Amino acid sequence: MPLSMNHRTLASLTLAPLALAAFSAFANEGMWMPQQLPSIAKDLKAAGFKANPASLSKLTEFPMGAIVSLGGCSASFVSPQGLVVTNHHCAYGSIQYNSTAERDLIKKGFLAQSFEEELPAAPGSRILVTEEVRDVTAQVLDASVQALSGKARTDAIEGKTKALVAECEKGGGYRCGVSSFYGGVLYQLIKQMEIRDVRLVHAPADMVGRFGGDTDNWMWPRHTGDYSFYRAYVGADGKPADFNKANKPYAPKFHLQLASKPLKEGDFVMVAGYPGSTQRLRLPQEVDFTFRVERPAMIKAFDERMAIIRKAGEGNRELEIKLASGLAGLANTHKNWTGQQASYDGSDILPRKQADYDALRKWVNADAKRQAQFGASFAEVEKLLAEGFAIREREMLLGMSTPGLLNTARSLYENAVQAALPDEKRKPGYQQRDQLRTRQALESMERRYDSEVDRRVAAHFLAQYLAQPADKLEAPLLQALGLSQGMAEPAIRARLDVLYAKTLLADKATRLSWMGKPAADFKASDDSMIAAAVALYDFDQAMETRDKERAGRMQVAYSGVMKALMAFRASKGEALYPDANGTLRVSFGKVTGRPSDDGTQWTAFTTLRGITAKHRGAGDFNAPEEQLAAIRAKQFDRYAAPELGSVPVNFLATLDTTGGNSGSAVMNDRSELVGLLFDGTLDGVIANWDFDRKNIRSICLDARYMLWQMKVVDKADRLLKEMKAL
Amino acid sequence: MPLSMNHRTLASLTLAPLALAAFSAFANEGMWMPQQLPSIAKDLKAAGFKANPASLSKLTEFPMGAIVSLGGCSASFVSPQGLVVTNHHCAYGSIQYNSTAERDLIKKGFLAQSFEEELPAAPGSRILVTEEVRDVTAQVLDASVQALSGKARTDAIEGKTKALVAECEKGGGYRCGVSSFYGGVLYQLIKQMEIRDVRLVHAPADMVGRFGGDTDNWMWPRHTGDYSFYRAYVGADGKPADFNKANKPYAPKFHLQLASKPLKEGDFVMVAGYPGSTQRLRLPQEVDFTFRVERPAMIKAFDERMAIIRKAGEGNRELEIKLASGLAGLANTHKNWTGQQASYDGSDILPRKQADYDALRKWVNADAKRQAQFGASFAEVEKLLAEGFAIREREMLLGMSTPGLLNTARSLYENAVQAALPDEKRKPGYQQRDQLRTRQALESMERRYDSEVDRRVAAHFLAQYLAQPADKLEAPLLQALGLSQGMAEPAIRARLDVLYAKTLLADKATRLSWMGKPAADFKASDDSMIAAAVALYDFDQAMETRDKERAGRMQVAYSGVMKALMAFRASKGEALYPDANGTLRVSFGKVTGRPSDDGTQWTAFTTLRGITAKHRGAGDFNAPEEQLAAIRAKQFDRYAAPELGSVPVNFLATLDTTGGNSGSAVMNDRSELVGLLFDGTLDGVIANWDFDRKNIRSICLDARYMLWQMKVVDKADRLLKEMKAL
Repeated sequence: MPLSMNHRTLASLTLAPLALAAFSAFANEGMWMPQQLPSIAKDLKAAGFKANPASLSKLTEFPMGAIVSLGGCSASFVSPQGLVVTNHHCAYGSIQYNSTAERDLIKKGFLAQSFEEELPAAPGSRILVTEEVRDVTAQVLDASVQALSGKARTDAIEGKTKALVAECEKGGGYRCGVSSFYGGVLYQLIKQMEIRDVRLVHAPADMVGRFGGDTDNWMWPRHTGDYSFYRAYVGADGKPADFNKANKPYAPKFHLQLASKPLKEGDFVMVAGYPGSTQRLRLPQEVDFTFRVERPAMIKAFDERMAIIRKAGEGNRELEIKLASGLAGLANTHKNWTGQQASYDGSDILPRKQADYDALRKWVNADAKRQAQFGASFAEVEKLLAEGFAIREREMLLGMSTPGLLNTARSLYENAVQAALPDEKRKPGYQQRDQLRTRQALESMERRYDSEVDRRVAAHFLAQYLAQPADKLEAPLLQALGLSQGMAEPAIRARLDVLYAKTLLADKATRLSWMGKPAADFKASDDSMIAAAVALYDFDQAMETRDKERAGRMQVAYSGVMKALMAFRASKGEALYPDANGTLRVSFGKVTGRPSDDGTQWTAFTTLRGITAKHRGAGDFNAPEEQLAAIRAKQFDRYAAPELGSVPVNFLATLDTTGGNSGSAVMNDRSELVGLLFDGTLDGVIANWDFDRKNIRSICLDARYMLWQMKVVDKADRLLKEMKAL
Repeated sequence: MPLSMNHRTLASLTLAPLALAAFSAFANEGMWMPQQLPSIAKDLKAAGFKANPASLSKLTEFPMGAIVSLGGCSASFVSPQGLVVTNHHCAYGSIQYNSTAERDLIKKGFLAQSFEEELPAAPGSRILVTEEVRDVTAQVLDASVQALSGKARTDAIEGKTKALVAECEKGGGYRCGVSSFYGGVLYQLIKQMEIRDVRLVHAPADMVGRFGGDTDNWMWPRHTGDYSFYRAYVGADGKPADFNKANKPYAPKFHLQLASKPLKEGDFVMVAGYPGSTQRLRLPQEVDFTFRVERPAMIKAFDERMAIIRKAGEGNRELEIKLASGLAGLANTHKNWTGQQASYDGSDILPRKQADYDALRKWVNADAKRQAQFGASFAEVEKLLAEGFAIREREMLLGMSTPGLLNTARSLYENAVQAALPDEKRKPGYQQRDQLRTRQALESMERRYDSEVDRRVAAHFLAQYLAQPADKLEAPLLQALGLSQGMAEPAIRARLDVLYAKTLLADKATRLSWMGKPAADFKASDDSMIAAAVALYDFDQAMETRDKERAGRMQVAYSGVMKALMAFRASKGEALYPDANGTLRVSFGKVTGRPSDDGTQWTAFTTLRGITAKHRGAGDFNAPEEQLAAIRAKQFDRYAAPELGSVPVNFLATLDTTGGNSGSAVMNDRSELVGLLFDGTLDGVIANWDFDRKNIRSICLDARYMLWQMKVVDKADRLLKEMKAL
């Protein structure tokens, strides 16, 4: 759960390719771009990696050719017939999609005994195989772009990016994107084969795959069998195709083999996957604003929002179920943010970040040439950040306050406005390639949206928003919705009721019917939300223009500061990995426990003993009886670790991971599969901002537990044979 | 708390001295009699002890000459001026005794800045210095005794014992006792100098000495500063004397020095003290009866008793305080028993004990000579045990059912009856030497006794007792109290109310006035409880006669089985330590953590960091502000362990200890003081019955924490100088 992320369009915002000489890296820190690995070969070797580090930099060779993305989760090919292993929580949507009251695959698990029995994954499921990563910095930031600034620069970068993507996707079967690294220093075009016929092959029982549930989420000791299997199917021509019974299993060029030797404490491990987002290179000003101002306010707002939603669901089980998934998402983010804030408060993070920044500035100022090259960037970044904080503070409540249906109306209207333009001129997100996703989003609103809850939430936060002085409020928004400064919640609620009575956007068919309608139809509509969206259009465009102006300036300035930082680090012989941005990364470290509370320690492995000890026969700790019987009978087969006296279940490793890494293959020094990454620890979530070399641990499923459960309990011999594990 | 015990008269029950050749011992198991240590010298050396093991067997030399008993707790001399260190919880009564609302020594702690400021310890406080341990088996079980059996044998042993004690105590200043080992194989006369002028010198603040309170009791991680200081005072002649301002500090022949090197994980440690009672040599029949029948019933009865007492105290704070200490004692025993039962249930303890016993019987039966020597003992023990279980089962409810005042009346009447005999003929416990203790017990009843609670408890259990068939009931008891089979609780309660209305024993002065009155006065009394005691006397004597008859037979039989066991073990080259019986013992082991829950481990040391982490500003976790400030400022002085980055607070060691060991000196391989033993772990309380070599740990105070607190926080420079620690 925590280490997966929602699919996000690979975003984009400038420069020269990175000169990569031999650098030194801290053993367990760093989400490295594969191409950086040869430059830290010495460290990789010292950590225990046996093969040539250069092999890890080639995406179309072994082992990286076996690593795939599921869009929000990571996975890997584990057979020549396109079998893919990922986390149970990454395949959860597909297990749920195929479950019925009569055939409860969530509870009982699922095991296809043949290709024929393999089930279509949830709509929208994709297996993305990264085939090419190309440095396109020179194209994105060519001379014509370099000459521009402000909004013109943003628009030009957007235009270059769209053109590169369009060119790359020509011919179909591929999904391309341009990713920005180091705040616009480097741009990469990433080309991924997009396999659309994905099938569910095997999932263990819920209380194996989710054992410990929310209680154990982000916790150690852990005993979760967080694995499931998909299979990639392609058309007869071997190319990606929509689901068709006649499709054939995809034959990947490479797949991972299961470990040929038992994993032990202290062993080298590495993980390859798609971490979503980190903020480690953020400047101290950003850290301070976030944790001093923004986050505490957001945590409070989330508390309030969750309380409203929980109250709405009380005594209405049907509504409660409808709201559950949204609430779980809010709770997960809230737990993460609260964990980060707890680690931040009272820590020395800010003074350290400030000291690092001061040292960088001092180094720049110590040399006239460096001063000339980077000095202006620092001044500009500091100015832009200060302005940006003021904007974020001013607009903080706005996002919470906006009724959900107004945002739906705004998207629909913008889509209509953009549709009038040639495809290549449309804004990203509103192009032809985005239409299917937009439609799916409008459809899926149905499963989660409740008008009453939407109004309660909006009224609650609008009351806070409108309580501010008039000069802090956006007049066009108030006008469009018929609101005024100082309105109390009951009056706001009454106004929202009037507005909601005059919109049909809560109705799915009506919502979808607006797709494809011309902008003129919107202007003529008396639907309250459509009318408000039309009324707000100029204001929204002005805001977008403001943001694009700032983004263009920021791209120049921020990349300047980052280049200074890279040069400073290089002067000390240190490599600098970019913050995670949803692209393929490699982390390495070792299997090891860590200090816990004073007087206790986490050991590297958990075992089957812990399942029996935690089992309560109910709630989050309700292991299947067949599994408990096998544990009681000590039917360990070949999967026990003698030094543990049982089968290893989960293990801790000094691997640097974050949300999006879920399902990533954990490999040993021979690039063999030893486990799956599935979680981090709650006191480690601050690592997204500040990496703590001593305490950071990733929580991994030990492949021996997966194989033991498949062999001894679930009798998944077919798949074990396919993986040559039998 | 858990590792202290109430003072118990050293009890007594035969044979040849132990032939001690070289034996092998399991590294961390065994509460060894000092004289056994030379026989396991090889193991002691292997474990890391540096000096000559023979030195540990001499009680009047270093270091054993520095080890003392407080009667229920252990302690040691730490200066040439009679300064004694023990646990805070062992000195608690004295701290409480000297506290007033205006001068709260419990809360604030106490530090005498001069000899003059040292305060008298609580009445009855003693420092017992063991000066001689003599094997008196040949005297206790001389030819005349050997010729006897049954009650006559019991009486004869009692007579020999009394004579030995009287001879030993002649001249005053000494307390002597005869202790029985291995169920009557060995008898030792133990002569202890009894220092009666004990003064309180220093105690830390309650929330240092009791930090963690009941919450952390028997738990790890632990952060308790469980130390306090007494001083032994003697008369001008250097002999024990009652408290007198003119008394002088006692100059012990030996005292411990503080460690000259830092204690580290893996280091050898040993502990010398007075463990109270263990049952490791008990036969499988006894183990089975205890845990299958007796303990579950007793745990249930304790639950009920505690519930009644708690209910009685509700809404009456004064009564609640009065009942608190008794309730805490019940809760402590209940927690211990529940912990033992939890470890026992589902364990292989009984089959292992049975297998050991079967192997012993097989070995005896395999040889005609051994068969002739021991065979009859086994048969007799089995017969006596079976009879004994039936008696215990029959009488189980009786103890709970008997009104407290009836037992008081019985003791008073027996004391009067015995007083008519020459002192040497009186029963143990009723001699001249016991009179002061009896008086103190009658006095201290005042602080804990509540008539209403006594009746509620008695009525509750009498209802259960009387619900049994008539043939299970003791008719004389029913008759004496006017009760009958099948009476319901309200009727019992009404009867008790009548009885209690006609007794004045609840009144302290009246209770004490009965001491010294002749038996005739008892017979003439119309006090309901005195009358009942007189009416029950013949019945009580018959029961005592039955028990003495059984004890005499059991002494012969049980010691026969134990001698067989010793011979069997010796044939395998293994030493056998006797069960703890309140006499001086030595355990050795090493400083080390242990596995905890699956996926976690206990580390060997806790540090000051844990105090800050546990501090809540209230309840059991409310560290003094001056201490927290010193921790925050990292004022570690010389007391930090570099490998821990802080001052060590408590540590775990594989030391074999039990209740009574509290306050024991923990010494390093040079016999220097490194800490104080103060607790065990809840999952280790079963060790009293079955020693688990892998998981057993004792919890010790690290002397560095004590010294740090004394130096940095409490400025106890005077004592540090005296201990040569400054």
